Amino acid sequence: MAEVLAGTPDCVFCGIRTGAIPSAKVAEDATTFAFMDIDPGADGHVLVIPKRHSTDLFDIPADDLAATTLMAQRVAKASLSALGAQGVNLFNCSGAAAWQTVFHFHLHVIPRYDDATREKMQLLYEPGQPADVDAIADFARRLAAAI
Amino acid sequence: MAEVLAGTPDCVFCGIRTGAIPSAKVAEDATTFAFMDIDPGADGHVLVIPKRHSTDLFDIPADDLAATTLMAQRVAKASLSALGAQGVNLFNCSGAAAWQTVFHFHLHVIPRYDDATREKMQLLYEPGQPADVDAIADFARRLAAAI
Repeated sequence: MAEVLAGTPDCVFCGIRTGAIPSAKVAEDATTFAFMDIDPGADGHVLVIPKRHSTDLFDIPADDLAATTLMAQRVAKASLSALGAQGVNLFNCSGAAAWQTVFHFHLHVIPRYDDATREKMQLLYEPGQPADVDAIADFARRLAAAI
Repeated sequence: MAEVLAGTPDCVFCGIRTGAIPSAKVAEDATTFAFMDIDPGADGHVLVIPKRHSTDLFDIPADDLAATTLMAQRVAKASLSALGAQGVNLFNCSGAAAWQTVFHFHLHVIPRYDDATREKMQLLYEPGQPADVDAIADFARRLAAAI
């Protein structure tokens, strides 16, 4: 618990959560903390973190993951009512191969607007190639065996 | 409950969950269902849905959202152990403005590999412009007041 209060040394988001590093706070509860991304992809881009340090989706405890997601939902709803967003993307990067750069689990809550001029960054999501049905079935079998 | 069992009419993902529409199933529990995306962004791209129909992040009940996220975590861990992924992106699109195309809440679980040739689609996430600190503080105040 002492480590929870103090934060993990050298973790920027632990520093933000303790207040050692300034941030524009949006909300917090017993388990989670929400603050503005300082390099926003769109107007109102928020990051939601668990107060207790976890690295990524692979090591975060289930209760912290659930609580962080529910806080992200609250922020998403507020971005509609308070900012006039028309949609929201939730996004998590776990692992350097998935573009994670701060190694404290965080969910991006990115409001989206019909007026794209309010979006400074696009999270592009392009259709892929036609599906290889056999390959997909094989991935399903391998994943199912590991769950 | 009858509607849960039968699925919401004209919803493709309800049809997949009931089996009326074929899919490559990965896992399921009492609340959630995981299956392969037929237009994968990378090898092993999975979609996780709540069995009970919700449209998006704005109307999904808290218990279904938590359960769906925890199933996504299980799939993410399996993609490391079973597929050799080095990272994972979680992604949700809520609202047409956020590129949602199937209006049954779903979380994308997209494995990422150091070998980018295994990725057929890039989820680009480019740094934005320098932050406007005053604007960010104003967004934080407006969101905080709505949470």
